[in-house]
Amino acid sequence: MVSKEMHELGAKRSVIRELFEYGKQQAAVVGKENVYDFSIGNPTIPAPKCVEESIIELIKTVDPVEIHGYTSAQGDFEVRKGLADYMNGTFNCNLGAENFYMTCGAAASLTITLKALTVDSTDEFIIIAPYFPEYQVFIKNAGAKVVVIPADTKSFQIQMNLLEESINSHTKGIIINSPNNPSGVVYSENTLKSLADLLKKKSKEYNKPLYLISDEPYREIVYDGIKVPYVPSYYENTIVCYSYSKSLSLPGERIGYILVPDCVENDQDIYTAICGAGRSLGYVCAPSLFQKVILKCMGKTSDMALYDDNRKLLYDGLSKMGYQCVRPDGAFYLFVKSLEGDSVKFSENAKKYNLLIVPADDFGCPGYVRVSYCVDPEMIKRSFDAFQKLKDLYKTEK
Amino acid sequence: MVSKEMHELGAKRSVIRELFEYGKQQAAVVGKENVYDFSIGNPTIPAPKCVEESIIELIKTVDPVEIHGYTSAQGDFEVRKGLADYMNGTFNCNLGAENFYMTCGAAASLTITLKALTVDSTDEFIIIAPYFPEYQVFIKNAGAKVVVIPADTKSFQIQMNLLEESINSHTKGIIINSPNNPSGVVYSENTLKSLADLLKKKSKEYNKPLYLISDEPYREIVYDGIKVPYVPSYYENTIVCYSYSKSLSLPGERIGYILVPDCVENDQDIYTAICGAGRSLGYVCAPSLFQKVILKCMGKTSDMALYDDNRKLLYDGLSKMGYQCVRPDGAFYLFVKSLEGDSVKFSENAKKYNLLIVPADDFGCPGYVRVSYCVDPEMIKRSFDAFQKLKDLYKTEK
Repeated sequence: MVSKEMHELGAKRSVIRELFEYGKQQAAVVGKENVYDFSIGNPTIPAPKCVEESIIELIKTVDPVEIHGYTSAQGDFEVRKGLADYMNGTFNCNLGAENFYMTCGAAASLTITLKALTVDSTDEFIIIAPYFPEYQVFIKNAGAKVVVIPADTKSFQIQMNLLEESINSHTKGIIINSPNNPSGVVYSENTLKSLADLLKKKSKEYNKPLYLISDEPYREIVYDGIKVPYVPSYYENTIVCYSYSKSLSLPGERIGYILVPDCVENDQDIYTAICGAGRSLGYVCAPSLFQKVILKCMGKTSDMALYDDNRKLLYDGLSKMGYQCVRPDGAFYLFVKSLEGDSVKFSENAKKYNLLIVPADDFGCPGYVRVSYCVDPEMIKRSFDAFQKLKDLYKTEK
Repeated sequence: MVSKEMHELGAKRSVIRELFEYGKQQAAVVGKENVYDFSIGNPTIPAPKCVEESIIELIKTVDPVEIHGYTSAQGDFEVRKGLADYMNGTFNCNLGAENFYMTCGAAASLTITLKALTVDSTDEFIIIAPYFPEYQVFIKNAGAKVVVIPADTKSFQIQMNLLEESINSHTKGIIINSPNNPSGVVYSENTLKSLADLLKKKSKEYNKPLYLISDEPYREIVYDGIKVPYVPSYYENTIVCYSYSKSLSLPGERIGYILVPDCVENDQDIYTAICGAGRSLGYVCAPSLFQKVILKCMGKTSDMALYDDNRKLLYDGLSKMGYQCVRPDGAFYLFVKSLEGDSVKFSENAKKYNLLIVPADDFGCPGYVRVSYCVDPEMIKRSFDAFQKLKDLYKTEK
């Protein structure tokens, strides 16, 4: 009597959620301080002070009917104008308010964009492992087909030859996510240039634009002075999906945007279809108070130094023990090679030591685990003993 | 290159929006005080004081990581528990947190519910004119078929004989909206009883549950001591879709819920499919700060006395002039019979006097116009002269 597909989706908890819930149960048994939960990517650094200050200023000084009222479906004009000005100053581009569509976060940005672009069920979107598992769900929701490119486990960049083979006349777009969840890798300039060259060549071959959907919620979470390039300056047919969940530590508030630059082929039609898709999916407007808050906090982020400390602590600690870790340049995940081929079993073994790490099978990259380091640094320190025991377990077994 | 359907939806501004934009242009020409804009259903009464107070208290006293963090997909447990307690106290029912799924407002409640229930494209949902135009969009998004029951223009209740004829083996559910946008009518107890009897009979006949989706954003906006009945107590297979947009004047904040009571057949499966549909459509969780705000404002509303004053002023004024008005018991719309058969032309004529009223054709009820009275009462007073001139125009023409 209900949609089978939706029922399955609702019944199947993600591996991440399963581990998180297990951690809460286990904490009740062995004590919270003895469970090392690296499962969830929930920011643990508070929003910057400007968020609190902006909320209070808006509430105290602006008419509540205006603050809490509907904005236009594409978002408040002043907010979008401020966003364009900020982006122009940061990335030396030439955007206006009309290039932005405010959304309820990255998931909404993606579902709306995919629904706007999908013409029929033969359309294909390519995703590159390791990828955020919900991409599969969102592409299916749009009624299109998912095509997966296996991970490049040497550098965690993109295997261009495999991507090239996968592009065909049905390909509508490619989703990239850099800094990447779960690998923590930032795509290099070389990768973006090769990707752009390939997509241009293939667009010509099939005589149609191939859209690059750049999912960038971790854009500002980068280390060692790395800058995430502005993707549309490498490849014109780029649609940017952004969220403030991570950069401003506001994941529950559901605020983000879609950016369709003028250089995108059929930009006006795409923007119009995005307005239609937002309407169709029931997104009336992005939350109004937080639209105004992000305008006031433009360019600010939470204190990333704390994630950086965690990153170093965890990367150095695990590397020293002999774990093979992908060096994370961004986001707040450490991607670690499983000590056996079956990463699900490896994650199960880790639970013996109350160590909760996520097997990357659902990210399209079996043989690895994701260790979220948006956690208390003291927990990282306490966890090393458990990581050592896990290592020893495999030594013994050999 | 983009979805034709989404493009059309994005390109076609609603009649309401067209009128609203026209009003803004016209205000620049003739002066704001000389334009009588009754087009939009945007609350003009500020949110009650408890909203401001709750926001400030939460921001000042609770850890920002908690306030702005992800809640579980179905909503914060404490919020849902508080909501269940409030509903139990108000409607003498027996609900728990597990019956509620928090959403980004009524549109999200509806898109999620419809997507959860729709099994395939042969499924039909019945809507009853006059209806909120977006119902058509939301049902199509779920991939189901829309069936319209023409308006009962005598009482604006439901033509049960027509509804009975429209139910068949494909019928999945019926959407009702009481207090009604655009008619302002509240379904009587008699209507609900007859509706329940009919649906029970037909469920038996087709040997399957027929789901009643009760869209209730105006539940608290009622006058003369009228109470909106708790629909599940009349018909067990009722799913309630609610929004705080109108009752707390928070339309831009996107906060509402879906209620699936235990008495609904397959309640667990429906709730699970709702979780799946929310995930599929990209709704990660309802905005977290406002989940906590509504918990603190449970049972409060904006000052409805102001809408009531407007209602009387407008209803009495127009009735005295000879307009045929439907007596509004709830919401903030006055439904008025057009002075000619073509209500689009009538609305065009009204524009001659800078009077912006919405033809109800898109609400499935041609021959009527919707006059929103969530406006400044002074504007209502100033508009009477224009309403009189519009009346006189038709006198002259006769």
